[in-house]
Amino acid sequence: MPQNTPSFIAYDALVDLLQAVFTRAGTSDSVARTLAQNCAGAERDGSLSHGLFRIPGYLGSLKSGWVDGCAVPEVEDVAPGFVRVDACNGFTQPALAAGTPLLLEKLAENGVALIAIRRSHHFGALWPDVEPFARRGLVALSMVNSFACVAPVGGRKPVYGTNPIAFAAPRAGEDPLVFDQAASALANGDVRIAAREGRMLAPGSGIDREGQPTGDPAAILNGGALLPFGGHKGAAIALMIEILSAALTGGNFSFEVDWSKHPGAETPVTGQILILIDPERGTSGGFAARVETLLDRVIDAGQPRLPGDRRYALRRASARDGIPVDGALLRDLQRMAGRSPAEPLFEVPLKAGAEADAATATI
Amino acid sequence: MPQNTPSFIAYDALVDLLQAVFTRAGTSDSVARTLAQNCAGAERDGSLSHGLFRIPGYLGSLKSGWVDGCAVPEVEDVAPGFVRVDACNGFTQPALAAGTPLLLEKLAENGVALIAIRRSHHFGALWPDVEPFARRGLVALSMVNSFACVAPVGGRKPVYGTNPIAFAAPRAGEDPLVFDQAASALANGDVRIAAREGRMLAPGSGIDREGQPTGDPAAILNGGALLPFGGHKGAAIALMIEILSAALTGGNFSFEVDWSKHPGAETPVTGQILILIDPERGTSGGFAARVETLLDRVIDAGQPRLPGDRRYALRRASARDGIPVDGALLRDLQRMAGRSPAEPLFEVPLKAGAEADAATATI
Repeated sequence: MPQNTPSFIAYDALVDLLQAVFTRAGTSDSVARTLAQNCAGAERDGSLSHGLFRIPGYLGSLKSGWVDGCAVPEVEDVAPGFVRVDACNGFTQPALAAGTPLLLEKLAENGVALIAIRRSHHFGALWPDVEPFARRGLVALSMVNSFACVAPVGGRKPVYGTNPIAFAAPRAGEDPLVFDQAASALANGDVRIAAREGRMLAPGSGIDREGQPTGDPAAILNGGALLPFGGHKGAAIALMIEILSAALTGGNFSFEVDWSKHPGAETPVTGQILILIDPERGTSGGFAARVETLLDRVIDAGQPRLPGDRRYALRRASARDGIPVDGALLRDLQRMAGRSPAEPLFEVPLKAGAEADAATATI
Repeated sequence: MPQNTPSFIAYDALVDLLQAVFTRAGTSDSVARTLAQNCAGAERDGSLSHGLFRIPGYLGSLKSGWVDGCAVPEVEDVAPGFVRVDACNGFTQPALAAGTPLLLEKLAENGVALIAIRRSHHFGALWPDVEPFARRGLVALSMVNSFACVAPVGGRKPVYGTNPIAFAAPRAGEDPLVFDQAASALANGDVRIAAREGRMLAPGSGIDREGQPTGDPAAILNGGALLPFGGHKGAAIALMIEILSAALTGGNFSFEVDWSKHPGAETPVTGQILILIDPERGTSGGFAARVETLLDRVIDAGQPRLPGDRRYALRRASARDGIPVDGALLRDLQRMAGRSPAEPLFEVPLKAGAEADAATATI
């Protein structure tokens, strides 16, 4: 098999492999598990800029001592509707997981509840943080800031992070409606992938170090900045996200992230907010059906697909065929996990009538 | 005085005049007062598309029997953090005012609280709904849907309203940070003003009745549609606002507003959500100072002004000089209020050393 032929890995096997990678890089077992699920889930769903592409960044941060891979989050019950979590310089996803039981309890009681996480490293996609709540019939809205790489409108220097916002709502009889989008014209990961591939971005995606508009990913990454999506309206969204993720949680602003003394560090330590709403309190039942009525109309008006459709389609394909992983990358991961490349990883479930495909998919 | 010379009116006098206009159009005294303050406040702050420009629309809706100007909102306490209000086919602002005492009580207890308003007509700017909360040190986020005039991305027919979102946060020693922006490329009021003035909009602001991109306000208004701001990301924001304002509140979707049997009606009957957060629960104090730290950095990076700056500057100018109102329009309003144009309205406070200006400002 040539080195770069993709192998097709089952999700569980990829989680297992990544868990071993994280554990060997010094994280606790539970942190390793959470990060592995997050990262494998992104790869599975085609969120490639937040999947395996991020592993070197995670490992760089761990190796540099910038992030604590064994941090134990401290959950604080500050009000009947308000949970605070100090991630203690660990990753955000374990902090969210630690606060979730209390958050759900508050939500059930109050109809709305909020979790504010600080001193937390968020390096994954944001949709995995909200989708599970919508699967429980809840509406979730989350925001996280990152590190200064986005200039305000009319500005010459980066202030905001890419500052994603993610929203999830249940649908009647369908996977939840979920969107996850950076407040920048592009996600930082996409800029890095374009730079690696030598591809130009749309003009005006960012500014260069002189503050001039550019579509050159290298100029954006080297002393320049991204711009917000959608002009001054997108900039207002970026500002709101910065305020809610950092000022409101007690976390760092994106421009306060200073990893200069930790070469190799790539995971910004900031804050995250997640607001949870029980929609049935507002509607006396039938919320998910109402969402469906709206989405039917959106499709009928000619919108070709809904947010999340592509992810769910790839998730189904991955469940059927395995997750495609570059052969060389897979061998690297096996090495990082301390495993022999000869060691069999798993077996992809066979498709009826497609045994030949499935056979090549098994390594 | 030539007919179109502006007169300069004190805010209180304009509120008083508009209150008389609304009362004579059949609203209750308290509804008249609330709408008059909203409308005069928008005019005072230079939000002209939501100021006096809207009076004919309000009156058309009232005259057609489409909206109940005497509706008494029904406030329902559905959970410790959740207030529902049935506006009973009245205007939204009185419904929000009716629910606010309970909302603030819940906020004080829970750290986060939500109000969901339905069967409500919102025809004003959204920032007046959030700014007062920030003056109390709170963070407020509100969304409202309207009537179908915005097409989804790739769509050929309108589904969403202009769907504004407004956000307010306290600042240390300054007026609150407040933004209020439509999820459409432009506010509907701005399209109507451009159509009236025969001015073209930016290309791609909307689509015509064939679904082709256009910057012609008449084509957008006559069978076409606006487009969301910022492409598919702005469209996702519009979708979220539609869900939170309507599906979650039990209100109409924008595309369900059917005023075809009420000629003259212009006020959409939909829903509104407002989420209130006590930021001090997340920070143990110092939130407003942290916001200030961020805004200092935004200005330092070269952003020429902050959201709300222009409104506050015009508000100060109006307090000093009066609110400029077209002379002919003022006479119309006086007639609608059942007053003689000769009747003196008020006196603008004199500026030191500017008595001459002030004298011409008094009518």
